[in-house]
Order: sequence, then structure tokens, then C-alpha cells
Amino acid sequence: MSLVVVGSVAYDGVETPHGTVDRMLGGAATYISLVASYFTPVKLVAVVGDDFADEDSALLSSRQVDLAGLERVAGGKTFFWSGVYSDDMNDRTTLRTDLNVFADFDPKLPDSYRAEPYLLLGNIQPALQRGVLAQMSQLKMAGGDTMNYWISDYREELLKTIAQWDFLLINDSEAQMLSGWRNLRKAAATIQAMGPRTLVIKRGEYGAVLFHGGEQFFAPGYLLEEVFDPTGAGDSFAGGFIGYLAGQGIEAKGADFAELRRAVIYGSVMGSFCCERFGVDRFRSLTREEIDGRFREFQTCTQF
Amino acid sequence: MSLVVVGSVAYDGVETPHGTVDRMLGGAATYISLVASYFTPVKLVAVVGDDFADEDSALLSSRQVDLAGLERVAGGKTFFWSGVYSDDMNDRTTLRTDLNVFADFDPKLPDSYRAEPYLLLGNIQPALQRGVLAQMSQLKMAGGDTMNYWISDYREELLKTIAQWDFLLINDSEAQMLSGWRNLRKAAATIQAMGPRTLVIKRGEYGAVLFHGGEQFFAPGYLLEEVFDPTGAGDSFAGGFIGYLAGQGIEAKGADFAELRRAVIYGSVMGSFCCERFGVDRFRSLTREEIDGRFREFQTCTQF
Repeated sequence: MSLVVVGSVAYDGVETPHGTVDRMLGGAATYISLVASYFTPVKLVAVVGDDFADEDSALLSSRQVDLAGLERVAGGKTFFWSGVYSDDMNDRTTLRTDLNVFADFDPKLPDSYRAEPYLLLGNIQPALQRGVLAQMSQLKMAGGDTMNYWISDYREELLKTIAQWDFLLINDSEAQMLSGWRNLRKAAATIQAMGPRTLVIKRGEYGAVLFHGGEQFFAPGYLLEEVFDPTGAGDSFAGGFIGYLAGQGIEAKGADFAELRRAVIYGSVMGSFCCERFGVDRFRSLTREEIDGRFREFQTCTQF
Repeated sequence: MSLVVVGSVAYDGVETPHGTVDRMLGGAATYISLVASYFTPVKLVAVVGDDFADEDSALLSSRQVDLAGLERVAGGKTFFWSGVYSDDMNDRTTLRTDLNVFADFDPKLPDSYRAEPYLLLGNIQPALQRGVLAQMSQLKMAGGDTMNYWISDYREELLKTIAQWDFLLINDSEAQMLSGWRNLRKAAATIQAMGPRTLVIKRGEYGAVLFHGGEQFFAPGYLLEEVFDPTGAGDSFAGGFIGYLAGQGIEAKGADFAELRRAVIYGSVMGSFCCERFGVDRFRSLTREEIDGRFREFQTCTQF
């Protein structure tokens, strides 16, 4: 039950109140792939330059992520982003965005990817997301992420794209922008009517709300003693969510709400681990036992 | 198992995006008493002027709230507050605060109140809160609320006061101010070390977190289709929380964490009903069946 993940692989520079890292492995597809690999086999589609370090592809390979779809552009440089977080970590300011080879990313799926049942489309241009979906022939569940820029400047493209999706993962401000409603119930109903029957609205430290058909489910945010670096937490959430569903072999059609609820909790679990170290570092040592331990902690903290 | 409630009874003027009400029954002790009366007998301690309307005391009496401790100052006027909410209802600006008879409030408990087992101290001057507690002889559980003004300007008084409390209910910005920590786990540990073994940190629309000893529990915020007026929602939460515990006869010493969890959910339930109408209006018609129905809805929305 392999999952195809499409999106950015990048180098990031971050500054948080806990320290500064000038250059580390990042990018949405990196986080999603590493995280989902705890639950299901993953096949990555992305582009990097020839500056992409062997140790970074080795990390992905060590988690059995298939790199057949990782294009390397000779003479090109990998996407670079840097930013600085506010003291409370709730805001971040972008210092630099060098798209580099990512500017011309036009994802082509290897033949060995096209019959896989699961697809997670990271935040890229909506028409490209649609092009990827069209290359897949036997999907059981597909969906993805987007961002404010596509919502405001590529709205028509985006609407055509998400109309084909089974699920959409966005944060609360994006949900408001996309739907026109600040009220979460009204926002959710409006967005579900655009296509995705399953919608997860992420609320940062406050957790996430799952809407599926007419039902809803609340997942709290995990209270960490120390948030080291929130970079990638939303992508890790996505990786836990779709990774769990793929691992369980869930089909979008007739998906069990109980399984979707567990998927959202696994998303929260993985987002919480992500914040414990800089960048992807927590996923260098994290074990499935730790994941399941925190899943049980979520149960203890929410059942009554 | 009567609950003694001490705090403000007031008239409020509010302006929300849904409309304007120039003068309506309000005050923390009003909300707490009305709400707690669904779970346990309530005895109110407060002060009003002779402008306090018969229909307003009749509403309290209709819910069997004991008004022996409601002092009426001849020739005095009842506390008046007015404010306007922002479009998203997350901020409010105070337009007017006329303390009137509340400025000289010095709560004296009728003899018939002093042997009751439960005490909820609404947000008043910390030394007055301590004076009330000293008048009670057989407490099983006592606690209350405070606000930023007492935390910043009456800190030593406040620390002496909450040192005697079993539980404290505050919102997240107050917890940060009181503890010096923005991180909720660190803030909670610091505040619990000040006295209250049970701490509820309210997070507005995002719900609340209960800390008890070393344990924690998350209660989500209920997603309303329409928030009419958030005035009194925090006080309604407090009324549901302590009302449920009093109704169940829970003692602070050895309190069962499962009961405290349910109390927090009843708090969230009552806070959510409060927002459905202006002021206390929802509590004119609300039934216990509706309350238990929403409690079950919270279960459905959080279990996995």
C-alpha cells in the first residue's frame, strides 16, 4: 500500500529562541515522507540540485523512502528557505526564499509509481498538483495541502484541483480565506462542498478539527515542555495522517470515521515529535514504540 | 450539598456583530449561580442597588438560587459595565465601568451559608476572597477565579489567597502573567506549586486544559454555528465545573480525576450554551436534558 508524496525538498535556515541553524534538510515532502514511512512504504517525487548532500538522501533511504522520483538537476541548486521565529514561536518571518530548481518543478511520476493507491500532494502550484493526480491510475485516496498564495492568486486553478480530492489539510487562516467564513463550522461546510469530503483544519498549538461528511472530531495539541523548532510540524501532521490511513489500507469511499479519527491523532502525535528537535532531527531516532506511546498518552488526556 | 457563590451581580451593555443590548442582567456571580443551579443548590453572596429589577431577582429565584446573601443598598446603584466586541469576537473593548455599590462590597455570609461544603469565589479583590473563605467552617472544596489586575497590582495578596484554594480557574494569558511562563506545562506546574492542586486554564474558543497533580486533560471548545455574545462564557464554564462537582459531592481531598474531567466538560458545555444568546438569555429556557445531550456530543467529538 505505497504512498506517493509530491512536494518540496529543500534546505532551511531557521532561528528560534533555542538557537540558530544555518542550513539543514527541510521541505514539505521531506517531512511528509520521513513521517509517513513509519506507517507505510513511501515513494517520493521532488527535485533537488547537485548540491543535495549524500547524507540527506541516505537519511530518506534509511527509512526505505523510494527515491526513483527524486529528480537531480545538474548544475542546479536546491530550494533554500530561511526564517526567524517570534519569541512565542507563533509567528515567523521569512528572511530568504531561493526557489532555485524548484521554480521549474514539473513533477513526472516514474512508471513504478503510477499504480499506487495513495497520493499526498504537498503545497505546490494547483495545476501541477492536478497534473500529478492525472498520472495515477488506481487511487484509493488522494488529497493534499495548499497555502494562502494559491488561495488568493490562483483561486480558479485551486478550486478545479481540490474538486478531485478526497481530503484537504489546511490551517485555520487558510480555511477562512478559502471559504470566506471565520466560523469553523461554516468554513468547513463551504469547503467540503468544493469537493473534499474529508477536511482537516489545523490550529497550530491548539490541535486540529476533522470534518468528515456531517461529523466532526477534535484533536488537541500536545503540550510539550519545550518547543524547539516548529518548522515542518504541519507537514509532519500530514505525514502521520495519510501514512496511517495508507498503512491501514483505508479507501476514501466508505472510509470509517473511527479510522479517520485515529489518523488525525497520529498526525498530532507526529507534529508534536517534530517540534522536539531542530528540523527533521527527531525522525533520526524516533521509534514506532515511542509513537504508539504518545498515541496512548493522547487517549489518556482526552477520554472522559 | 449547597454551593456558595460570591462575586458581582451587574447590569451589562454589550455590542456584538449580532446586535446591541443597552442594559441586561450580568455579572460573574449571576452567570455562575444560574449555571451551577442546574447541578446543585446555590447560595449567592453579592451586592446590588435599589435599581435591581424584581424580574432579575425572580429569574434567580426561579432557579432556586438562595438570595439571603444578596445585599441591597438603599439609594445605591448596581454595578454597570459596557463593552464592544471585535468582529471575530476574540477581543472586547470596555466602554464604561461604573462600580457603584460594588466599590464597597465587603461580603458577609448569612449564618445559613457558613456550614456549606462548596465555595466558588468570583473575581473580586483577593483579600475579600480570603475573608469569605475564613467565614466558612466545613468546606470540602473551595476555589475561584481572578484577573490580570489582581495578578499585576495585588500579587502578594493574591498569592496568600490562592495558597488556600483547592482549585483555580484562569485563562491562558492570566496563567502566563501569574507564572511567568508562556509554556502551558511550565505555567501549570508553577501555579500548582502556589497552592491549587487542581488548575483549569481556559483558552477561549479552543477549550480548556485541566491539570490535577501531575495529570492533564484537554477539553475542546464546542464549535457553534453562531456565537451571539461571549459575555459570561468563562463564568458559565466556572459554574458548570464547580456545580457538577458539588452536585456529585466530590471532596477536594482524594478527588477522582475522572470526576474532575467530567466537570471540565460540563464547564465547556455550559460556556457553549452561554454564547448562543445575549447575556443570560439561554439560561431562561435551557433544560438539563439539553445539557446532557451536549455532554454526549462532546464525547462523540473527542473519543477515538
